[in-house]
Amino acid sequence: MNQYQQKVKIMSNKFEQYKGLMKRVADVHHTIALLHWDQETIMPSKGAAFRAQQIGTLAGISHEMFVDEKLGGLLNELNNDSSLNEREAKNIQETLKDYEKKKKYPTEFVEKLSVTVAESTHVWEKAREADDFSMFELHLQKVIELKRQECDILGYEEHPYNAMLDNFEPGAKVADLDVLFTDVRKQLVDFVKKIGQKAQVEDSFLKKHYDHQKQWDFGIDLLKQMHYDFDAGLQELSAHPFTTNFNPCDVRVTTRINENDFTSMTWSCIHEGGHALYEQGLSTDDYGLPTGDAISLGVHESQSRLWENHVGRGYGYWVANYPHLQGLFDENLSNVSLDEFYKAINLVKPSLIRVEADELTYHSHILIRYEIEKALMAGDVEVKDLPEYWNSKYKEYLDVDVPSNKEGVLQDIHWSSGLIGYFPTYSIGSFYSAQYFAKAKEEIPDLTSQIESGELKPLLDWLRDKIHQHGRMYSAEELCVKVTGEKLNFQHFMDYAEKKYSEIYDLKMEEAL
Amino acid sequence: MNQYQQKVKIMSNKFEQYKGLMKRVADVHHTIALLHWDQETIMPSKGAAFRAQQIGTLAGISHEMFVDEKLGGLLNELNNDSSLNEREAKNIQETLKDYEKKKKYPTEFVEKLSVTVAESTHVWEKAREADDFSMFELHLQKVIELKRQECDILGYEEHPYNAMLDNFEPGAKVADLDVLFTDVRKQLVDFVKKIGQKAQVEDSFLKKHYDHQKQWDFGIDLLKQMHYDFDAGLQELSAHPFTTNFNPCDVRVTTRINENDFTSMTWSCIHEGGHALYEQGLSTDDYGLPTGDAISLGVHESQSRLWENHVGRGYGYWVANYPHLQGLFDENLSNVSLDEFYKAINLVKPSLIRVEADELTYHSHILIRYEIEKALMAGDVEVKDLPEYWNSKYKEYLDVDVPSNKEGVLQDIHWSSGLIGYFPTYSIGSFYSAQYFAKAKEEIPDLTSQIESGELKPLLDWLRDKIHQHGRMYSAEELCVKVTGEKLNFQHFMDYAEKKYSEIYDLKMEEAL
Repeated sequence: MNQYQQKVKIMSNKFEQYKGLMKRVADVHHTIALLHWDQETIMPSKGAAFRAQQIGTLAGISHEMFVDEKLGGLLNELNNDSSLNEREAKNIQETLKDYEKKKKYPTEFVEKLSVTVAESTHVWEKAREADDFSMFELHLQKVIELKRQECDILGYEEHPYNAMLDNFEPGAKVADLDVLFTDVRKQLVDFVKKIGQKAQVEDSFLKKHYDHQKQWDFGIDLLKQMHYDFDAGLQELSAHPFTTNFNPCDVRVTTRINENDFTSMTWSCIHEGGHALYEQGLSTDDYGLPTGDAISLGVHESQSRLWENHVGRGYGYWVANYPHLQGLFDENLSNVSLDEFYKAINLVKPSLIRVEADELTYHSHILIRYEIEKALMAGDVEVKDLPEYWNSKYKEYLDVDVPSNKEGVLQDIHWSSGLIGYFPTYSIGSFYSAQYFAKAKEEIPDLTSQIESGELKPLLDWLRDKIHQHGRMYSAEELCVKVTGEKLNFQHFMDYAEKKYSEIYDLKMEEAL
Repeated sequence: MNQYQQKVKIMSNKFEQYKGLMKRVADVHHTIALLHWDQETIMPSKGAAFRAQQIGTLAGISHEMFVDEKLGGLLNELNNDSSLNEREAKNIQETLKDYEKKKKYPTEFVEKLSVTVAESTHVWEKAREADDFSMFELHLQKVIELKRQECDILGYEEHPYNAMLDNFEPGAKVADLDVLFTDVRKQLVDFVKKIGQKAQVEDSFLKKHYDHQKQWDFGIDLLKQMHYDFDAGLQELSAHPFTTNFNPCDVRVTTRINENDFTSMTWSCIHEGGHALYEQGLSTDDYGLPTGDAISLGVHESQSRLWENHVGRGYGYWVANYPHLQGLFDENLSNVSLDEFYKAINLVKPSLIRVEADELTYHSHILIRYEIEKALMAGDVEVKDLPEYWNSKYKEYLDVDVPSNKEGVLQDIHWSSGLIGYFPTYSIGSFYSAQYFAKAKEEIPDLTSQIESGELKPLLDWLRDKIHQHGRMYSAEELCVKVTGEKLNFQHFMDYAEKKYSEIYDLKMEEAL
């Protein structure tokens, strides 16, 4: 063995050590996800206090394992090693970035934040139920103060909110998002106003009685059609739909069923299914490594929204699925044509609640939260003034009057849980999804007719090839350029929206623009 | 503050530190239980390999946390501290015992064992399905070798199997069990032979079609009647019924439903319910401490068997519940009297499968496993010879011919999972249950009539008071003496068996003895 070969062997040993440590951290990390999954799906009520404690303990262990000096030493050695291949080197770079970031957090801060958000989430639930912001105010105050501290701990350039954004969408910056949301405000909000001047769409048949079990079975069929792998996942019920994964071979989704509203279950199934397909498509070999992990929340959301909206709210999808649906719910749908159905499920109408919003007005909800979070982090607005601030923005962008804090500033769990910087990824994801779907249509010439016949595998294969398999090999921006030839460009979303909704609402294109 | 007060304060601080460490270990330990629970109830098939790895990692972490020198130091300090109260002192003694035992295990051994049993359990499942012992042989060989190593790691007096027994039934010894199982062989096996000479009991109505959902609902009703707390637990389906707990406020049970055999679900519900009542009755304040934990598997089994057999297969229990059952399954039971039903559910008949055995021949199944395990640990029998060895013992003690390994040596999961020394606790538990139930009858004068009217709370309260609340405050033997006035005495079981079955089979007592 010559000197070079010897060096390669030592380094490859070190890389294996690194992989071993990462695998152990991932095992703990995914176990925490199971504790949460169980809590949200079946845990009996009295188990809550011990469960919170158990999650806290595991979170502490996972943090300690990750910031261990041994891992740090290995990372620094491997970072200077030219014998690693490109994927290996990328893993080391990304892990080092994560490591240096996590290292910045003092353990006392992590523990204090964890206790504070556990408490404030608990209080938020009660405050929302009681429609009483004052109950929640002091708790939210504490959370916001800690998040401001966190900005300082992490450090930032230009705007403290950049530190928060980076936690969910690495690389996202206020400077870019200001431009993006200006487009939303100028183009999308205006377009929605034009739609609002048109006649109402009839959608009352969606709110008739839809049997629980039949809805459940239909949702499972949709997931199967998407090629969600039920040998590597399952669906359960929960109060709020979500996707979680314990490894790429065990990716679970939840849905909820409202017997008086058929839409809730259906599009949550397709949405969570889209998230799950991404996770099921990650590399099992790279379990625990950045290249075995999703890029960002925005890219994750691009997958769920692509399936939910571009596929699942498209005309072709219901060419494939409407006859089956009609057969199941004959009593509600026998007199509803496919065209009427399609219009009803794409009704655009400004409303109060983010999670019930249509795919266009949705972004006004996000725009509002983006502006508020930015102001909170910069200290430009105080927690006590939030209800008024919130309501004025809903009037401005959505032209709706907020009748109660329950339907206003108290509606989302995010802030109580310390999730500041999370909301923008919903819009970013939607805009990515439009850009990716436009490219998929270009590259899969038969896509439209495939969707019309329920053949969704070619689309999934394209997503697996272009996006899923890479994990964090590329940044969100790099991947977007690699796949579509350009950075995130809001125009793809506007083109999609204008084409689709001008048809539905019979707007002339010049009217629309 | 004087010197004594100062010392008390320091030690009470140390005791709090000890409690804090124990709580963290318990959090990890119970999280492992959740990983198992999920695996056995709903985990999708492809998730198996990663799950085994995750359990292995957590097991390693839990082990390392428990054998940490910091805990060891605290324990040794606190062990010499006279200011602790009796319960505190007992916790320190028991933890120190556990600590010194766990300290003996090298972490690599723990992880190796965990990986080996995960693999061998997986292979066992397939081998049983294929009825092919040779598939399983090498894997079992590895497990047995590790278990023999474990005997050496732990150390033992007289017989290596003592080391294995101590893992499940602290204090149990081959010398004592040899005496106990000689009684089983001499008295119980003979008694069963006498029963066998009597006419057959009609029980075909138990094997008619019993609707899945109605069985499920009936099982839930039985659990409610036992005062199993559904706000601190839930029931799920699994291939093999079991009980698990994540804390006293979250204790879960599983059952299985066979639509062509009503008995499987019913008595598994009552049995697991009995286990669960013990866990729900442990102290929440002492979570993570010995006094918040069950004494031994034998005592645990005494609780499940007491409910399953002494209550659930008793005449009075069905005085209370048979009308309800008859109403549910009118088509099968309308012509079956309570007496006929009672005889059928107590049919004694030698058979091949342990988990389907009646409460008398059951102990021959355990006797056989006890003898085999003892021989395996002593090196008196080799894995390759197990099928033949097994079959000859079934012929000898139960007078049945074993037609396949699937119905023979491959029937139980225990050995594949590394559970050597576990089986005897089933018999020990049954014998304890007879002794405890006899005492309960003495101390609760109305017990019989209470059971006949479905009023089970006084019995539960008695068990809570006499057994559950103490956790590991007393050893199994100490508790037995404290509650019943004497050590485990097989005669209580034989008295119970002879009285009950002489009546059912119309044996004259002199015939029976």
